[in-house]
Amino acid sequence: MDARRLQTTARFAEQKLDALIISYGPNVRYLTGYTGSNGLLLLFVGGQGVLFTDPRYAIQAARETTCKVKVVRGPLLVAAAKAIAAKRLKRAGFEQARLSWEGHAMLSKALARKAVLEPVGGWIEEQRMVKSSEEIEAIRRSVLLNSQAYVNTMKNVRPGVRESELAAELEYQMRRLGAEKPAFETIVASGERTALPHAHPTANRISSNDLLLVDMGASLEGYSSDMTRMACLGQPAAKLKRMYKAVLEAQLAAKDAVRENVTAARVDAAARKILKGYGLDQAFVHSTGHGLGLEIHELPRLGKRDKTRLRAGMAVTIEPGVYVEGLGGIRIEDTVLVTRNGCEVLTPTPKELLSL
Amino acid sequence: MDARRLQTTARFAEQKLDALIISYGPNVRYLTGYTGSNGLLLLFVGGQGVLFTDPRYAIQAARETTCKVKVVRGPLLVAAAKAIAAKRLKRAGFEQARLSWEGHAMLSKALARKAVLEPVGGWIEEQRMVKSSEEIEAIRRSVLLNSQAYVNTMKNVRPGVRESELAAELEYQMRRLGAEKPAFETIVASGERTALPHAHPTANRISSNDLLLVDMGASLEGYSSDMTRMACLGQPAAKLKRMYKAVLEAQLAAKDAVRENVTAARVDAAARKILKGYGLDQAFVHSTGHGLGLEIHELPRLGKRDKTRLRAGMAVTIEPGVYVEGLGGIRIEDTVLVTRNGCEVLTPTPKELLSL
Repeated sequence: MDARRLQTTARFAEQKLDALIISYGPNVRYLTGYTGSNGLLLLFVGGQGVLFTDPRYAIQAARETTCKVKVVRGPLLVAAAKAIAAKRLKRAGFEQARLSWEGHAMLSKALARKAVLEPVGGWIEEQRMVKSSEEIEAIRRSVLLNSQAYVNTMKNVRPGVRESELAAELEYQMRRLGAEKPAFETIVASGERTALPHAHPTANRISSNDLLLVDMGASLEGYSSDMTRMACLGQPAAKLKRMYKAVLEAQLAAKDAVRENVTAARVDAAARKILKGYGLDQAFVHSTGHGLGLEIHELPRLGKRDKTRLRAGMAVTIEPGVYVEGLGGIRIEDTVLVTRNGCEVLTPTPKELLSL
Repeated sequence: MDARRLQTTARFAEQKLDALIISYGPNVRYLTGYTGSNGLLLLFVGGQGVLFTDPRYAIQAARETTCKVKVVRGPLLVAAAKAIAAKRLKRAGFEQARLSWEGHAMLSKALARKAVLEPVGGWIEEQRMVKSSEEIEAIRRSVLLNSQAYVNTMKNVRPGVRESELAAELEYQMRRLGAEKPAFETIVASGERTALPHAHPTANRISSNDLLLVDMGASLEGYSSDMTRMACLGQPAAKLKRMYKAVLEAQLAAKDAVRENVTAARVDAAARKILKGYGLDQAFVHSTGHGLGLEIHELPRLGKRDKTRLRAGMAVTIEPGVYVEGLGGIRIEDTVLVTRNGCEVLTPTPKELLSL
């Protein structure tokens, strides 16, 4: 974490900062190791920092971080402002996309013109895009655990099981295998409900010849995995089979486009081009993927307009999908690691339509 | 939801608003019924509203809400600003505690001085404090389910089980009983780790004569429950028994203090007074409780400084706790419903230390 903080402070000169106020939980965790829900890092030139928290987390914070810990009552932003004033610092940055309008007003008031507040773009989110080898190993373990939970569960699926029961079983298997929690609400959708990209599982029973979509991820040691697979109890309709073929081809094309220095938009375009060939590009209503790590959705976004150049060490999902209301939807998703010459697909689960 | 929106717009006159931009997920859900992760409600005088979302949620949004739905690409805030300008509205409120500094800057730019932006305090959060009868029934079901999951799990606990396995089992039971998910990360702590108010479950095995703390909640139909109970495999140390007695007494005193028109701070003081009598007030490092509903932490906060007067229909937790590093911690928590003459304890689980 010390090296991470140094890397952040190396950018202070860009905006002539004396300090940076970091209040967004995943960023605080990334830079300090602290995992509690209430924490604020005040970072100084040179990478030293003070972690502010409240008495509920006093013991935990001291155990988790090498930073100096300051336990305070009342708003952490006010405590940070006081520390800035006491140290006679002149320019303090804040996370412009994370601090609320009200939080900014509170900070301004507490500083009472003793220091200038500078909006800072997503420095730490950008830094988090490229994973360290420890982070890559954590993501790898999370991905393997997630796939194992899928395999353990799916071998017992029978017609008549409810979507919600299947989701419960998948999450239980994750937990049994050591995950802290699902990385997001597990999506289980069957039949025409697969056309909802973010379907909540319902009490609907899965019937024969129904398509089944499972989108699941685990959180292990804080790190996320993300996978979508499709299965069918019997034979899907011909139209859906064709959609499956198209999405699988698009997924492989996007994966093949991944390598260092390629733009995120270029990877997205590779998937879109294939789907266009099938006349399905209008049914592809989201982007091709996203980074993941301490959060399930991180930078970069593999979408039409994202010009970020991929770098070795980024972990991203590749997940094209098509959705036709009243018929159904198809999505296939892997977690992959960007390498210098291409990518490593971390997800070990076969991508063929699983026949149950 | 229509009546809820009317109740919100009834306050427009306070700040002479023509519209209110609501971007905070739980508030959007409360006012529209929409449950997706990306949504923005633009609310007009008279309670009509437009729900903005992206193409991933087009089908779902149309099914879930009676509001007009507008599916857009790009930032929802920009789309809302355009709609405000097109309708020639002059004063638009925004949620000051929820909108980021950057979001506010984006809105300002998109409005290009065609309308004034007015910060609005927690109107909808305040409105959400008092639950409707439908909400109360949902919370009641969530509480009962949560307690049932606890009972189903605890009857099978044996020495040697890991904290993380127990957490997995508790969450599985919730899911089996129909919960969408845990309302928060289930806390299972044993031995001296009970001194961490927000302990993540570890691979530690639960041993004989160890205290065991379980803090769990379910989310059912979107509504939360929250309960903490303590158990012991054998006999706890005498010091811990005395702490248990003190906390139980404090919990009952706080519960007895609850009724319409009493301040939240008064309820907190009732618990604190008992603990002071035991010399344990310094070890009580958090507030006595919090509201809950669509979120696990809502207003009011039952803390030292909260002057909110309780009202019938509020659902709050009562959860004093004491924590001694190196020894252990005790917390006992119920979900209660404020009534005119007192409160109804919704949690049916006995509060005696459970002997396993």
